Amino acid sequence: VTPPAVPEPVANHGGGPPATWVEGTEESDFPVTNLPFGVFSDGAGPARVGVAIGEYVLDVARLATPYADVLERPALNGFLALGPTAWADLRSRLTELLTDPEYRCTVRPWLRAMADVELLLPFEVADYVDFYASEAHASNVSRIFRPGQPPLQPNWKRLPVGYHGRAGTVVVSGTPVVRPRGQRGPDDYGPTAKLDIEAEVGFVVGVPSRLGTPVSADAFAAHVFGVVLLNDWSARDIQRFETVPLGPFLGKSFATSISPWVVPLAALEAARVPGPAQDPEPAPYLRTSQPWGLDLTLTVECNGTVLTRPPARELYWTAAQQLAHLTANGAALRTGDLFASGTVSGGREDQVGSLLELTVDGTRPVALDSGGSMTWLADGDTVTIRGSAPGSGGTRIGFGAVTGTVRPAASG
Amino acid sequence: VTPPAVPEPVANHGGGPPATWVEGTEESDFPVTNLPFGVFSDGAGPARVGVAIGEYVLDVARLATPYADVLERPALNGFLALGPTAWADLRSRLTELLTDPEYRCTVRPWLRAMADVELLLPFEVADYVDFYASEAHASNVSRIFRPGQPPLQPNWKRLPVGYHGRAGTVVVSGTPVVRPRGQRGPDDYGPTAKLDIEAEVGFVVGVPSRLGTPVSADAFAAHVFGVVLLNDWSARDIQRFETVPLGPFLGKSFATSISPWVVPLAALEAARVPGPAQDPEPAPYLRTSQPWGLDLTLTVECNGTVLTRPPARELYWTAAQQLAHLTANGAALRTGDLFASGTVSGGREDQVGSLLELTVDGTRPVALDSGGSMTWLADGDTVTIRGSAPGSGGTRIGFGAVTGTVRPAASG
Repeated sequence: VTPPAVPEPVANHGGGPPATWVEGTEESDFPVTNLPFGVFSDGAGPARVGVAIGEYVLDVARLATPYADVLERPALNGFLALGPTAWADLRSRLTELLTDPEYRCTVRPWLRAMADVELLLPFEVADYVDFYASEAHASNVSRIFRPGQPPLQPNWKRLPVGYHGRAGTVVVSGTPVVRPRGQRGPDDYGPTAKLDIEAEVGFVVGVPSRLGTPVSADAFAAHVFGVVLLNDWSARDIQRFETVPLGPFLGKSFATSISPWVVPLAALEAARVPGPAQDPEPAPYLRTSQPWGLDLTLTVECNGTVLTRPPARELYWTAAQQLAHLTANGAALRTGDLFASGTVSGGREDQVGSLLELTVDGTRPVALDSGGSMTWLADGDTVTIRGSAPGSGGTRIGFGAVTGTVRPAASG
Repeated sequence: VTPPAVPEPVANHGGGPPATWVEGTEESDFPVTNLPFGVFSDGAGPARVGVAIGEYVLDVARLATPYADVLERPALNGFLALGPTAWADLRSRLTELLTDPEYRCTVRPWLRAMADVELLLPFEVADYVDFYASEAHASNVSRIFRPGQPPLQPNWKRLPVGYHGRAGTVVVSGTPVVRPRGQRGPDDYGPTAKLDIEAEVGFVVGVPSRLGTPVSADAFAAHVFGVVLLNDWSARDIQRFETVPLGPFLGKSFATSISPWVVPLAALEAARVPGPAQDPEPAPYLRTSQPWGLDLTLTVECNGTVLTRPPARELYWTAAQQLAHLTANGAALRTGDLFASGTVSGGREDQVGSLLELTVDGTRPVALDSGGSMTWLADGDTVTIRGSAPGSGGTRIGFGAVTGTVRPAASG
């Protein structure tokens, strides 16, 4: 089959959202207004970049676009590095291809059923930073770990608190999570007894920055390509014993799972909302002229029971503020940098993003649809996080799922 | 010039250390018992791997060895990934080439004067972890920041406390360090007024490990290739305000400098010493049957005045224990992972590894040879860290220097 020539970008269609000739996209996470990027392997050639549409993966590397060389690779990094003009140009071309019925016959052969391919880690993670941007989460954790003390540290409303995590153990959805061993206290070594999740939103950097030069909050979209869902698996007993004074380490670094699809910021225009009012007013470098809150609602499911629905729109610090803070000291960005929101917790009990909060440190079991109940994760449990945001023209932008099943601790 | 054929490895010469035909190596950091690896650029072809000998860089990629393909690259990672058998084989071949006078005429053309080449970052840093392994340092910091409280946290003698730093801002010696801006407290944003250094020893991972499988302390030399010196530049005011509860972040992430030469563990056999006695006995996974303390003494110099001489042999936790801890939860290693000791401070006042300790949080200026005094770093200051360890046959193993000059904060 000869790949079709891809049209030059055209001006946006007037009126509602463009309709795609691909069938069955309506109910899926991936309408034509989404077009997230990932990496897949289908046994027919090396792993390469694909774009999700409905229940299909578009084999975009095989189309005749100016970007074929970077799309033919097993990681998005080359494409991410091209920057916003290229991102917009390819998005426009793909929209045209998938909406103009003229291309139906020539493009259809380049759609692979998503069920028939393997989705891989979408990009090589450069540095991974995890923030702590939810006020409800920070307050809940403080009440549990430091009862009687003020719920927020003096720095919390002054800057987005964050720390570096382990880039090398960021894994794609579906990767099993081996229960970690560690020191749960003095003379108490063994498998974690408090295995938890944190439901988060992650942001993927495309365009690097120069060492010594901060990136302004308003330059967010000039550097960040898109959004993934993220599960920051946590071993609460290991974390608690190790964490003072240098922060979380082995309680987190055994695995961080991300969704296989990176949803472009361009697909989230309709989801952009102002963040919550901030008081005190943040330092000038943390101010943005554009709203970068996201009306993105997560669902966290364990073995089929939806446990909680964390609302990302309630995050106190937006991703644009997080990026500005991350680079305020002149730290350089690299293509493939990943930074995440920290646990997304809303103000209600059914909106918290961790079992620590949901079960009040394991003291209050939650009911399962199957009839039982749970506190911390047991071996064999499967956790799945999904996300949903408004897309253009009344469509719904999904994120696929980030899922993982707990395996027993290795012997030893 | 045709590169010489490189001999097969031969059995070690009996008696003392092998003598090299390269002149002037006696007083240098790089006797033939050292043979550290780095990456250089000389304008004649792309950057590639080199080996230091005396005042020269051996253009090892151009020699006819079985490793030419990985040595022809601008980072050590390919060679690092080959593992201990290849490392030992190439070391043996190079020793033969540089000691047998038979090779003098053919090898000499492949020596570049070190002064004529540019030394680059020797490897692509995968993940960077910084430990806190010096008891004197942890105690000193605690006395300064938390006076009246116990000098060590309950976890400190149970496990090597550590955290992840920013891999993307690890820079090679010579890179200027721009004074970072940041929040020094509530409503107090500006250039750091407490710019500091931390003199450390860094360890470079060659052989990766599998996610979910811990690496034992005794497998240290099967994974770690060698040692660099490291300056963990620190902005103490920014660090102090941000650090509770998730640890240091922007107070560290603006720059971490490393020496351009990675000294192989094989060059440090004579420097291996038992670590200090440990009480309580560490958990089984932290026990080693081999001594992995290093008799390595650092010197820290500012604008020509030697300020302090930190002794790495006093570190409470050895690098083998640090590696075992880092992976105890199943975290995978990647080629290019870098982990560092944390500030090396000895028990005496002239052995501490930071200005924080040396000047007691800036309250006690130290005298300079030039007649003045200093507390924190001023713009224009140049800090240089060197190291020295016993090598085989009475030689001295040096590490080159890790140096950096402070540039004024960017406007803004």
